[in-house]
Amino acid sequence: MNYKLLGRILGKIMILEGILMLAPFAVSIIYKEGLLNNFAFAIPIFLLVLLGSLLQIPKPKKASLYQKEGFALTALVWIIMTLFGAVPFVINGDITNYIDACFEIMSGFTTTGSSIITDITLISHSSLFWRSFSHWIGGMGILVFVLIFIPESDDGSSMHLLRAESPGPQVGKIVSKMKVTSRILYLIYLGMTVLQVIILMCGPLIDYAQTDAAIGIDYRGDKLFHALLTSFGSAGTGGFGCIPNSLEYFTPFAQYVVSIFLILFGCNFALYYLILIGKVKHIFRSEELKIYLLIIISSVSIVFMSLVTRLEALGYSVEEGFRHSLLQVTSLMTTAGFTSTDYNLWPNLAVTTLVVVMIFGSMAGSTAGGVKISRLVIAVKGTYVNIRKLINPRYVPKTKFEGKSLEEKTTNDVFAFFTLYFLILMSTTLLLSIDPINGEIIKVTSDIGGNYEVKHGFFSNFSASLACLSNVGPAFEAVGPYCSFAGYNWFSTLILTLTMLLGRLEILPVLILFTPRTWKRT
Amino acid sequence: MNYKLLGRILGKIMILEGILMLAPFAVSIIYKEGLLNNFAFAIPIFLLVLLGSLLQIPKPKKASLYQKEGFALTALVWIIMTLFGAVPFVINGDITNYIDACFEIMSGFTTTGSSIITDITLISHSSLFWRSFSHWIGGMGILVFVLIFIPESDDGSSMHLLRAESPGPQVGKIVSKMKVTSRILYLIYLGMTVLQVIILMCGPLIDYAQTDAAIGIDYRGDKLFHALLTSFGSAGTGGFGCIPNSLEYFTPFAQYVVSIFLILFGCNFALYYLILIGKVKHIFRSEELKIYLLIIISSVSIVFMSLVTRLEALGYSVEEGFRHSLLQVTSLMTTAGFTSTDYNLWPNLAVTTLVVVMIFGSMAGSTAGGVKISRLVIAVKGTYVNIRKLINPRYVPKTKFEGKSLEEKTTNDVFAFFTLYFLILMSTTLLLSIDPINGEIIKVTSDIGGNYEVKHGFFSNFSASLACLSNVGPAFEAVGPYCSFAGYNWFSTLILTLTMLLGRLEILPVLILFTPRTWKRT
Repeated sequence: MNYKLLGRILGKIMILEGILMLAPFAVSIIYKEGLLNNFAFAIPIFLLVLLGSLLQIPKPKKASLYQKEGFALTALVWIIMTLFGAVPFVINGDITNYIDACFEIMSGFTTTGSSIITDITLISHSSLFWRSFSHWIGGMGILVFVLIFIPESDDGSSMHLLRAESPGPQVGKIVSKMKVTSRILYLIYLGMTVLQVIILMCGPLIDYAQTDAAIGIDYRGDKLFHALLTSFGSAGTGGFGCIPNSLEYFTPFAQYVVSIFLILFGCNFALYYLILIGKVKHIFRSEELKIYLLIIISSVSIVFMSLVTRLEALGYSVEEGFRHSLLQVTSLMTTAGFTSTDYNLWPNLAVTTLVVVMIFGSMAGSTAGGVKISRLVIAVKGTYVNIRKLINPRYVPKTKFEGKSLEEKTTNDVFAFFTLYFLILMSTTLLLSIDPINGEIIKVTSDIGGNYEVKHGFFSNFSASLACLSNVGPAFEAVGPYCSFAGYNWFSTLILTLTMLLGRLEILPVLILFTPRTWKRT
Repeated sequence: MNYKLLGRILGKIMILEGILMLAPFAVSIIYKEGLLNNFAFAIPIFLLVLLGSLLQIPKPKKASLYQKEGFALTALVWIIMTLFGAVPFVINGDITNYIDACFEIMSGFTTTGSSIITDITLISHSSLFWRSFSHWIGGMGILVFVLIFIPESDDGSSMHLLRAESPGPQVGKIVSKMKVTSRILYLIYLGMTVLQVIILMCGPLIDYAQTDAAIGIDYRGDKLFHALLTSFGSAGTGGFGCIPNSLEYFTPFAQYVVSIFLILFGCNFALYYLILIGKVKHIFRSEELKIYLLIIISSVSIVFMSLVTRLEALGYSVEEGFRHSLLQVTSLMTTAGFTSTDYNLWPNLAVTTLVVVMIFGSMAGSTAGGVKISRLVIAVKGTYVNIRKLINPRYVPKTKFEGKSLEEKTTNDVFAFFTLYFLILMSTTLLLSIDPINGEIIKVTSDIGGNYEVKHGFFSNFSASLACLSNVGPAFEAVGPYCSFAGYNWFSTLILTLTMLLGRLEILPVLILFTPRTWKRT
């Protein structure tokens, strides 16, 4: 283990986190939130920069990392960033418990969006900004971001970082130099976020008459703030809200804009690079894109059709039924987790469709979580190959994916990933069932039909595990869109925090970090 | 395709089914159930023997089968047996709908034990006998059974049949000759069944005072009948009951006997062969056995501990709490599906534990369904190998399973199986959510606290899919132990029938049967 180099890179990332925290610090000053709120950010900023700088002092002998170090470092970075990122919430009192605060900011960095906050109106602007900003930071992967600032790792070890970091089974080497790649991806990401903010600012964002009546707070002065936070949550496919009930009180215009941008952020970013260099034709050759769009269209159709017969009971107009279908499907499928209505009360066909899209998520190379469409396609093709081999043992597979022949190693890695995903999902569900909250009756105040009661049971835990493993955010039943994760005890909260990390880093890097063998001398 | 040989083998199996049906025919005569009931079996027996004999006429040129033909034949055999096996229920009117009857007998042959019958007291003795007997037939695999009667396939093609048929990733070639193997396995199976019947006959079987009061039928004269049917259900790990509420009214003695026999029938039958030839020491070297027993002990402990704090609310004594824990865990884990109480009302920790053991099932080479413990062990070891390879790319795995080094191909097959299992589980859950029964409130009369209501939701469909895919039988929520599958419409019933077959044949043979390429000339 090249501890000195590991420390050095970690240190740089800590300094970077300190710099990034200047943004919520500025928000705290702009909104005149007082000394406590200012210090809530100033203290961790000071600590991060100090400790990060100290870690720069030891000079590493070798300037390269082994693969295992790259993986372990990636997992370690998210944990360190979470441990420091949680501090402001505890200092300013927005979240009283440090484990809960870690859950909240891990949910931010992993772009999950699950929250333990029960009343968002009590949270300061700076805290709201910090958690949504953490989506944006996490979205493209802290390390793709950071690669730009690491001159040491130019001999291929940066590839290890990116392999661990980047969602999906394969990282397209768009241009030869990794640092250039990350800069291009990052600029696309920045550009699209800015575009979303501008478009949201051009139309009506929130239905202020509704928020006046339902929440009793005048949100009129905060339009830019809300547009910014919503765009952070969309770009990172995170989904933290900025006012109560996620996007319920947002205007239809804003809800459509968010849905469309979510679809865009669920696409492989390499496609945008192809557009930039004028190879628009190549986009339409992407199998994954076609299947991604096909799944969106069919899922929205299924959900909409299942709502259409019950519009009256749910209190929707036809347009509302369609808009809610579109937003819920795109939001849960891109694993953002914004919501505009209480889908807990939807027909079971719609609910199950949402569960299924939560599992698969969006395209590889996007900011979304989940298993990824590419893995689904590879699993199906791999199964076909297996069947053909059983039919004729001399069969030589010619199966292709994205124009390249599908290697056996890729298929096997995908099968292994599915297996781990399934095992972790069921293990987490089992561990959550120990929590004393199980069996409790939870009272929910929803947008459809007022109050109702729901028992915390198997589906609550299963969907909570899924929502964290796929980095979606809200789940179903007692942890549905109009509930929070606050009811879970510290043990469950820790388990779910770890599950979010497992999901975001696609399992193996986290397992490597916790394998003792990683830390032995080779 | 060697259609003539396929037809010949199929024909022999049809004749065999006809012969086996003489048993329920005899029951119908012994219990003097009248002409309709006699004809209910006589007609399919006549048809099976006639058609089966006609299929013997064409002389096949080649006397061997390709692998693909072996797989396709296996799947085909179960379908043909189901199509004919369902006929008696429709003729004697015990089940009015043919699709429902197919579901019921497929549930029998696949040793699932899910039922669409709502009131078992209305069913004739001969029908009850036939469905329990079908568990016993299906248990060891129709073809292992049938191998004895097929002289043609002695050149290794019988191995293909067995590969498709036998549960678990590897079939231990106990003795060189396949036919001898199947005879030995079959004799062990027969011997253990007879032993269970004898033991059950030696003690009190049913608490007649309870059945008198609760059901109002005098069951005293039917002890042998009930002992026989219960043993059929145990040996095949099927779980169809013979009186209402499964084993609720059985005596503690009988419940303990069934639990112990279920544990025995969940073991790899090769272990019993080792005992027979005096190699008792070898048994204790079986990794899978150790983990199997470990999972049983820990699951029973977890369930029992979760019940202990609520004994009063559930109305159990400490002994009852333990007995119900033991029976429910062994029954769902060996995928039999006998029940002695309404576990729907148990704490969520107990419920989730039961769901998890339903997924994994018991040992490979047993009559149980599910993923199998060996696959779980291989998946975990395979993941460890994958991590070690990432830590050190030059790592050469020395991982062993059951004393032999674990080959990469085996691990990859297991990962592929887990993936398919997960995908089929979620697809079935989605397809069931189309059923109009979703959202309906089901009234349940249970042994704990009388009546209660439960909504048919996600967990009902998820657990129903799992119960059929793992060949367990009863599920949870609205398809729990005190409910039935009768509420599902014809489409869902067909889907679940197919799911049971997929589970019993471990997926691939069924997919091969339905792949057009299988039927093309090679």
